[in-house]
Amino acid sequence: MNELQEIDKLFDRLFPIMRSITGEGVRETIRILQEYIPLEMEGIPTGTEVFDWEIPKEWVIREAWIKDAQGNTVIDIKNLNLHVVNYSEPINQWLSLEELKQHVHTIPHLPNAVPYVISYYKERWGFCMSQNQLDSLVDGQYHVYIDSEKVDGELNLAQVVLPGKSAKEVLISTYICHPSMANNELSGPLVATALYNRLKNWNNRELTYRFVFLPETIGSITYLWKYGQQLKENLYSGLVLTCLGGKEHRLSFKQPRATNTPMDELITRLNQFEQYEMPIRPFTPLYGSDERQYCSPGFNLPVGQFSKMIYGTYAGYHNSLDTKEAMTIEALLESVDEIETLLKLQELNGYYVNQKPFGEPKLGKYDLYPDINAPGTWGKSSSKKIDNRQQLNQILTILNYSDGKHCLADLAKTLPYPLEDYEISIEALKEHGLLTGPFYEEQEL
Amino acid sequence: MNELQEIDKLFDRLFPIMRSITGEGVRETIRILQEYIPLEMEGIPTGTEVFDWEIPKEWVIREAWIKDAQGNTVIDIKNLNLHVVNYSEPINQWLSLEELKQHVHTIPHLPNAVPYVISYYKERWGFCMSQNQLDSLVDGQYHVYIDSEKVDGELNLAQVVLPGKSAKEVLISTYICHPSMANNELSGPLVATALYNRLKNWNNRELTYRFVFLPETIGSITYLWKYGQQLKENLYSGLVLTCLGGKEHRLSFKQPRATNTPMDELITRLNQFEQYEMPIRPFTPLYGSDERQYCSPGFNLPVGQFSKMIYGTYAGYHNSLDTKEAMTIEALLESVDEIETLLKLQELNGYYVNQKPFGEPKLGKYDLYPDINAPGTWGKSSSKKIDNRQQLNQILTILNYSDGKHCLADLAKTLPYPLEDYEISIEALKEHGLLTGPFYEEQEL
Amino acid sequence: MNELQEIDKLFDRLFPIMRSITGEGVRETIRILQEYIPLEMEGIPTGTEVFDWEIPKEWVIREAWIKDAQGNTVIDIKNLNLHVVNYSEPINQWLSLEELKQHVHTIPHLPNAVPYVISYYKERWGFCMSQNQLDSLVDGQYHVYIDSEKVDGELNLAQVVLPGKSAKEVLISTYICHPSMANNELSGPLVATALYNRLKNWNNRELTYRFVFLPETIGSITYLWKYGQQLKENLYSGLVLTCLGGKEHRLSFKQPRATNTPMDELITRLNQFEQYEMPIRPFTPLYGSDERQYCSPGFNLPVGQFSKMIYGTYAGYHNSLDTKEAMTIEALLESVDEIETLLKLQELNGYYVNQKPFGEPKLGKYDLYPDINAPGTWGKSSSKKIDNRQQLNQILTILNYSDGKHCLADLAKTLPYPLEDYEISIEALKEHGLLTGPFYEEQEL
Repeated sequence: MNELQEIDKLFDRLFPIMRSITGEGVRETIRILQEYIPLEMEGIPTGTEVFDWEIPKEWVIREAWIKDAQGNTVIDIKNLNLHVVNYSEPINQWLSLEELKQHVHTIPHLPNAVPYVISYYKERWGFCMSQNQLDSLVDGQYHVYIDSEKVDGELNLAQVVLPGKSAKEVLISTYICHPSMANNELSGPLVATALYNRLKNWNNRELTYRFVFLPETIGSITYLWKYGQQLKENLYSGLVLTCLGGKEHRLSFKQPRATNTPMDELITRLNQFEQYEMPIRPFTPLYGSDERQYCSPGFNLPVGQFSKMIYGTYAGYHNSLDTKEAMTIEALLESVDEIETLLKLQELNGYYVNQKPFGEPKLGKYDLYPDINAPGTWGKSSSKKIDNRQQLNQILTILNYSDGKHCLADLAKTLPYPLEDYEISIEALKEHGLLTGPFYEEQEL
Repeated sequence: MNELQEIDKLFDRLFPIMRSITGEGVRETIRILQEYIPLEMEGIPTGTEVFDWEIPKEWVIREAWIKDAQGNTVIDIKNLNLHVVNYSEPINQWLSLEELKQHVHTIPHLPNAVPYVISYYKERWGFCMSQNQLDSLVDGQYHVYIDSEKVDGELNLAQVVLPGKSAKEVLISTYICHPSMANNELSGPLVATALYNRLKNWNNRELTYRFVFLPETIGSITYLWKYGQQLKENLYSGLVLTCLGGKEHRLSFKQPRATNTPMDELITRLNQFEQYEMPIRPFTPLYGSDERQYCSPGFNLPVGQFSKMIYGTYAGYHNSLDTKEAMTIEALLESVDEIETLLKLQELNGYYVNQKPFGEPKLGKYDLYPDINAPGTWGKSSSKKIDNRQQLNQILTILNYSDGKHCLADLAKTLPYPLEDYEISIEALKEHGLLTGPFYEEQEL
Repeated sequence: MNELQEIDKLFDRLFPIMRSITGEGVRETIRILQEYIPLEMEGIPTGTEVFDWEIPKEWVIREAWIKDAQGNTVIDIKNLNLHVVNYSEPINQWLSLEELKQHVHTIPHLPNAVPYVISYYKERWGFCMSQNQLDSLVDGQYHVYIDSEKVDGELNLAQVVLPGKSAKEVLISTYICHPSMANNELSGPLVATALYNRLKNWNNRELTYRFVFLPETIGSITYLWKYGQQLKENLYSGLVLTCLGGKEHRLSFKQPRATNTPMDELITRLNQFEQYEMPIRPFTPLYGSDERQYCSPGFNLPVGQFSKMIYGTYAGYHNSLDTKEAMTIEALLESVDEIETLLKLQELNGYYVNQKPFGEPKLGKYDLYPDINAPGTWGKSSSKKIDNRQQLNQILTILNYSDGKHCLADLAKTLPYPLEDYEISIEALKEHGLLTGPFYEEQEL
């Protein structure tokens, strides 16, 4: 089974689960993911105070339906778990159509879509259906039934670390708290899972990668409450993954609140010098996902966000039109490919230190310089990806600017070559003891 | 009597006074102003060395006129105090027309105007008259008479402080040393007096305001000699007020020598984001008023200057055409209004500190967040000046950026609302203990 | 004999010498230069390790020629010292034309030019001739003869210091290692020699000037190995001189690797505000001369480079077309004039300190201010280069900004006068004890 098929199968297992910010749905999701990557699950008990918040009770939902006077089912969460307002109180009552409508949410301008509605922090009950279905209901009595309960339990989250040479960490964070939605829920965990398995196989991992799966907002606040200090000490670069499907959409990057952060500078460089054309969205605390918490002023972590078919901008956002067909597994794979490439470049784009910084080294000694200066010895192609003159240009540039204060993107500004091309030259210099790095903090020469 | 009528009446009392850089004219001016605001007058004795200068003697001027051979008065300072060169030596002599002309100043290109001429630091005598009048004089003998005297005395200045919550001060400085000129002399003291009475009635004064009235140049140098060190310690922002009349003219701001100063940054922000369109003049030591002294390199205080009908750019500058009719009291009131608004915004535009900076606070607890996330709950108007979504945008933005390092203008850059609109949101956050500020220095979180 | 004639004569003496990176040619060149300026010669022995390099042996070349079967001379270094590959091994052999061609270098696209070819660091032998001559050779046997030897000796360089008021130094570095080439070899030493004799006669030398003559690359690396630490401590500004001929070419400046360096900022200022239009070439470690060594990251000295007919861009580069006629002595004199002017301005463009920084000084006391403020006293011309109002503008500006943090170019930004015009005002202020400077580091007020 290839990667695409594996993701597709995992999608089908995760989609039907009735998730909320706490409870069995989150745990079941983590347990399934554990079959793919070695996540460790944790629980924080109901009632725990986390900063300005409190861990809520778990919502247990057993049944929820509306039947008409004849006993015909109008809607039932067995068919679509969006039909009940998430975190709803229990109810068992007969209502007139007029009374019922007070508790039914629709999207008038998308008459076929069932909205996704939540009410975590105020006690309410309610149902969701399509506008068309609501319009088709005839006057009469309706039986509304929600068998739900709020019980002491815990908030669950899970993480796993892939160690690298440096203790500096890259955070990959995604959320697992929405019921059946494809792009807005599962795209993040699926891409994160695939990325873990890609990075696991890198043969030279410079940085340490921390993958975190948690409920949105309250989950990341809880995570920061427990691990925020540790992140502040070790975090080099972080990414929130959300809404990564959509075939015709371009992956885009939301900048962290902090400036001069690694992924932001990398993408800016690629856009400026390599026609990369990745849209960059400025940081805002108004909309988005958990980067809003990671970037709260008390932490101000270098955490950006990747999104492809962006929340709030597509018809299926927060409703039943957010399906696998609209998202596509192929689009998720595109996101995996592109993010993996960027993570690899982020590793290459560290600080380097010239080990012979006083004058130019005698490159001829290392077979890195032509041994005669005569017309016509330059520009000859070789077996390498880059020719000799290009490599000499790179080598002279790397050596001159590798003072521990210029990262690769800085030092490469004066040459027209893409960043990835420098790997050969860097390796050659390291092999001869002329260079050390990459480092992820400025170094003294 | 309304504000405009009061200013008008005060103008009429101050206009005829024969002022110079020292002497009874300055004292009389201060005594009249003391009826309006509780100024304290000070005197620095003649001969005191103040930095590179020395306090000059007082100039006593009793009479000054020219009569023709028939005893007809040609000019007399009883009619216009500009007719004598300010700080003139005494004289009592008969001269031919040719000899007289050596001592008469005119403005050939403004043949009706009597110039204002001074000679503080070189002993001279002289008269000023219109070119037309000079041209009309017939050959013959003229009697010139100046009954003046230079006596030991003092240089006078006056100040008053309006205290605020913060000991950080705003300086408002203006000069009181010219004889009968409207825009170039009285506009500053009249606007400063009106501002004092406006600010006195603010119910929540964050900053402390220091109003200073003094003779130009030698007065501000003397003030700095006496209080410069104190200003260096406490001054947050300063303004020199000069030439604030002129109905069709736009109030403009001359930047301090120092960069990143509060009023400069505020006006720049208003121009950039709020179509404020206030002309900004770069600092220059070449022309201007006392900001040249406050901004001398030994002090380098954050003192800018407001002017409306700017010195040197209007026909009446330094001559008898500088009248109340050319200046207008209405234009002074416009200046008062606009400067008061800017001072108020300068207070709002401080640094704030989020008191719950770790993750977002749970805004729902404070009734600052909608309790359900469903289609169509946003964008509803309310009784407030701004609707709920606008307020939530402001609140999230204020909280995220209130790290004690962003002033309001910095943090408000990402939203399209005018600065003054933030007052409601700031007050709401302060009420719930979520925010402190404004502060006028950067704060630690 | 005027300056031009002297340079011309010196050129003729230096041109025929067979120079290489080491050996008698370098010593002979230095000995001739010592007749013009008091250079001190130094020698570093063969085999000495200098950073990543080692001082090579001296190359002794006695004879080198090719003869045909009839004994006719084809080429001989007696006629042109470029005919032998510089640093060639000895050889004495009969070869077929085909075999000979393996060891002959030409420039096919410049069929009349004899190339200049070196092989310092790999053992080789070879000849250089024009493509036309090579094409004219007929089949047959050829006698190749090179009587050369590599012997222990030393690498030679020479320097001389012109002291100034400040111990801060200006480095003028040029190379003396190429055989008979005009622009690419002799232009630098000739311009440096003339500059020394110009600067020697300045009557008020603020800075200390260090003139250095050495073989390119290995020579500057050796110089840095011996004197690099000293340069790091004292160097204010440095210049490598290379390729300074070419009548129709504009002198241009290659920036140092370090930013905010004195000559770079000066030229940038002149270009921006004085229509100077000197081309500025960004620093690159890829091409150039010894600035690549001075600017290696371990030293990162503020050393730029002047060039007129730039290396690599003209037909005669590194071949026999690089003659006096193509370079012209007149063009060298243009370079001398322009560099001298820039060095003079570099001295003027220091930091100054106002000695009366509290308020404006009372300029009238020093006869630097008009004693009456009346219409029409300004703008009168005087015997000075600049009129009174211009001088007052300069004086007020200098005083206001001379806080030890603004160099002249910074403080002069607000006025439209060329930098050189400030000398009069600066001298006037210094004469009255109102100003000190120039300094070449920031000062406290």
